[in-house]
Amino acid sequence: MSARDQSVKSAVSRERPAGLPPAAAQDLADRPARPSRAGRPAKPGARSVEGRLLARLLDYLGRPPLEFILWTGERIAPPGTAIVACVRVSSRATLLGILADPQVRFADAYCEGRLEIEGDLVQLLETVYHAGRNGPPPSAMQRLVERLRRPPINTLSRSRENIHHHYDIGNEFYSLWLGETMAYTCAYYPTPTATLDEAQNAKMHHVCRKLRLRPGETVVEAGCGWGMLAMHMARHYGVKVRAFNISREQVAYARERAAREGLSSQVEYVQDDYRNISGHYDAFMSVGMLEHVGVDNYPELGQVIARSIGSNGRGLIHSIGRNRPALLQPWIEKRIFPGAYPPSLAEMMRIFEPYDFSVLDVENLRLHYAQTLRHWLELFETASSRVREMFDEKFVRMWRMYLAGSIAGFTTGALQLFQVVFAPRDNNDVPMTREHLYTR
Amino acid sequence: MSARDQSVKSAVSRERPAGLPPAAAQDLADRPARPSRAGRPAKPGARSVEGRLLARLLDYLGRPPLEFILWTGERIAPPGTAIVACVRVSSRATLLGILADPQVRFADAYCEGRLEIEGDLVQLLETVYHAGRNGPPPSAMQRLVERLRRPPINTLSRSRENIHHHYDIGNEFYSLWLGETMAYTCAYYPTPTATLDEAQNAKMHHVCRKLRLRPGETVVEAGCGWGMLAMHMARHYGVKVRAFNISREQVAYARERAAREGLSSQVEYVQDDYRNISGHYDAFMSVGMLEHVGVDNYPELGQVIARSIGSNGRGLIHSIGRNRPALLQPWIEKRIFPGAYPPSLAEMMRIFEPYDFSVLDVENLRLHYAQTLRHWLELFETASSRVREMFDEKFVRMWRMYLAGSIAGFTTGALQLFQVVFAPRDNNDVPMTREHLYTR
Repeated sequence: MSARDQSVKSAVSRERPAGLPPAAAQDLADRPARPSRAGRPAKPGARSVEGRLLARLLDYLGRPPLEFILWTGERIAPPGTAIVACVRVSSRATLLGILADPQVRFADAYCEGRLEIEGDLVQLLETVYHAGRNGPPPSAMQRLVERLRRPPINTLSRSRENIHHHYDIGNEFYSLWLGETMAYTCAYYPTPTATLDEAQNAKMHHVCRKLRLRPGETVVEAGCGWGMLAMHMARHYGVKVRAFNISREQVAYARERAAREGLSSQVEYVQDDYRNISGHYDAFMSVGMLEHVGVDNYPELGQVIARSIGSNGRGLIHSIGRNRPALLQPWIEKRIFPGAYPPSLAEMMRIFEPYDFSVLDVENLRLHYAQTLRHWLELFETASSRVREMFDEKFVRMWRMYLAGSIAGFTTGALQLFQVVFAPRDNNDVPMTREHLYTR
Repeated sequence: MSARDQSVKSAVSRERPAGLPPAAAQDLADRPARPSRAGRPAKPGARSVEGRLLARLLDYLGRPPLEFILWTGERIAPPGTAIVACVRVSSRATLLGILADPQVRFADAYCEGRLEIEGDLVQLLETVYHAGRNGPPPSAMQRLVERLRRPPINTLSRSRENIHHHYDIGNEFYSLWLGETMAYTCAYYPTPTATLDEAQNAKMHHVCRKLRLRPGETVVEAGCGWGMLAMHMARHYGVKVRAFNISREQVAYARERAAREGLSSQVEYVQDDYRNISGHYDAFMSVGMLEHVGVDNYPELGQVIARSIGSNGRGLIHSIGRNRPALLQPWIEKRIFPGAYPPSLAEMMRIFEPYDFSVLDVENLRLHYAQTLRHWLELFETASSRVREMFDEKFVRMWRMYLAGSIAGFTTGALQLFQVVFAPRDNNDVPMTREHLYTR
């Protein structure tokens, strides 16, 4: 895997907002431009203003073991640490941008080629995540700024735009690195050596078993991606599925594939918002949609589920989550997933509490998501020249950064993956134990 | 099992506060006493003032299928329902008490023999729970009263009193109906036919496997009951255990039994509050204590856990819970478990969020608790004449009501049982799947 030569700052956890205090960054930006010292090595021990501010930023980030090499040749690294990777910054303007807003501008600079990295990207991002936990607590100003950034509010039309932004950039692109199943969610590795396709199939069986799907039952799926889970449920569990998705391209793909596989009579794909789900079903399934819903809409999602499954159904929600409430890393939210927000478990309860659902089972699969992403990144790098042809170099770097940053998020516990099984309070037709999930 | 002839109102869920509006009850209490009509059957269709108010209470409770027979012979039942059980009320004063505060006075009247029940107690309580969900929404006044009842605040000394109240009433009493293991918490039934002792042993293995205890490790247990889980961990998993409990009688029993079984060098029982836990351990275990902690103390409990297991341990908390925040049924809180409060899952997160713990696994075992309680009630009824000798008839009735009401709470989903496994965010030494729990 050639996941080297890449960037670092997408890993800065939103839990400790990064960036110099605005006054300091402004102070630097206001200085008169100095003559470039490019090519002239800095005197040992002497530091430029930029170097001093950068060192301050590194202190603030908990001193991750990174060395920065400026356009002047000046080298800045936290003292006394074994360096994991080097970051080459190409210009003063680039550095100023990073100092002012490291969480967005660092990754942007990498994508635009104004910054290069020498070292293993994932390992580098992991050390930044770890270091971030040792930094000083955020200042009052940073906490205020953090508070002013609100979680996204996803109306019907906003949701359509957000989903279009990410999922409608071409089915061919996704088919290059998602594997046979086109499942764009955390897989389940029953053994550490399972392949991506094996693990995606195992995940689909795992969630179906958790819902104990039985032949002849009906399932509504909220957010069905390219439709493979719906087909899997129909094929292996004999259920009828109505699957909702607002991504035009995904629904077109799903319908075509279901027709080709002779499953059109059992699976119906509806290009519509989960809020417009109607009808009554035995089970509710949602894998990888909740991240796009937004906490404000959780009670409405609960209402949709309650009216869909009545008092005897059951449901499963699979979602990226957090140990505690935190906004999405700003670069990811801005460039990759507008409107996305992975909830804490307590926040997820806002779906269930108003409708008296009983949570039956929660499984945290974060290390499975790290492994899934490793497989995706490997396939992505293999296909990177094709991706470059389809889009451009900036796009390749952007997706590399996003996939590598996500691996680091899951391996360091900044991100979680929760599978939550629930049922209406009155439903006693639930399995006594979970042993049935593990008998083959 | 002679769990008949018993009472009903402990089942009124706190989620819909019961009781007539205070003004109506006061109105009735202010009336001049009428000459008793005892023995004279009421005219068909005609209703006394008491009968009309009782009918209103039944409406308010969602019309549970119960018939009330008053001291006058008058019969009141919701129209058009198949009656499950009869409630005989012995006097006007008893009825007035029930009308004013049904959630406490109904069970009190039963315990004091001023009220008799004909029918199966558990079934009766279950129908009341179910009916309660169909009643009208609470009035503004009732919601206000509900809000004024605050969750308990358990200081060190208050906790000691509360625990003393319930657990220090005699080890012999508990030994009559808890079975061999003296485990006073939800058992785990791997098969529906498991006996109580088998299920308690299976539970102990289940929680040890969830923590993946390994020989030579150290465990701190918060709230150890009569000490059997600590001995089980030492005996079967080769760990050293420090077990905390503030119940004098339980600790005395545990120490004596551990000595008898030759486990004193591996298990240390400390008669102290969980807040005073010191030292570093590989794992934190708490089965059935959280109900006595109180939500306000959850962050402090989290702090105790964080300093106990550092960044590489893991922990398990097993507790009665709720689908959503609700105070304990008032009679149970007043007579059985002062200071107790079963939390919702979201409330439990107040333990974990401040310390960035990752929740790895939640299992809801509410139907296992119903089965455990059925076994306890059966043993209790078998031993009831001995209990009557040790205490009195009122005590027997009180415990019968508590056990039967708890069964109904779990079968109807008013109560849940959560086993939560968690680990510090940085701990990647966690099992990838839960299969190891189910391979024998």
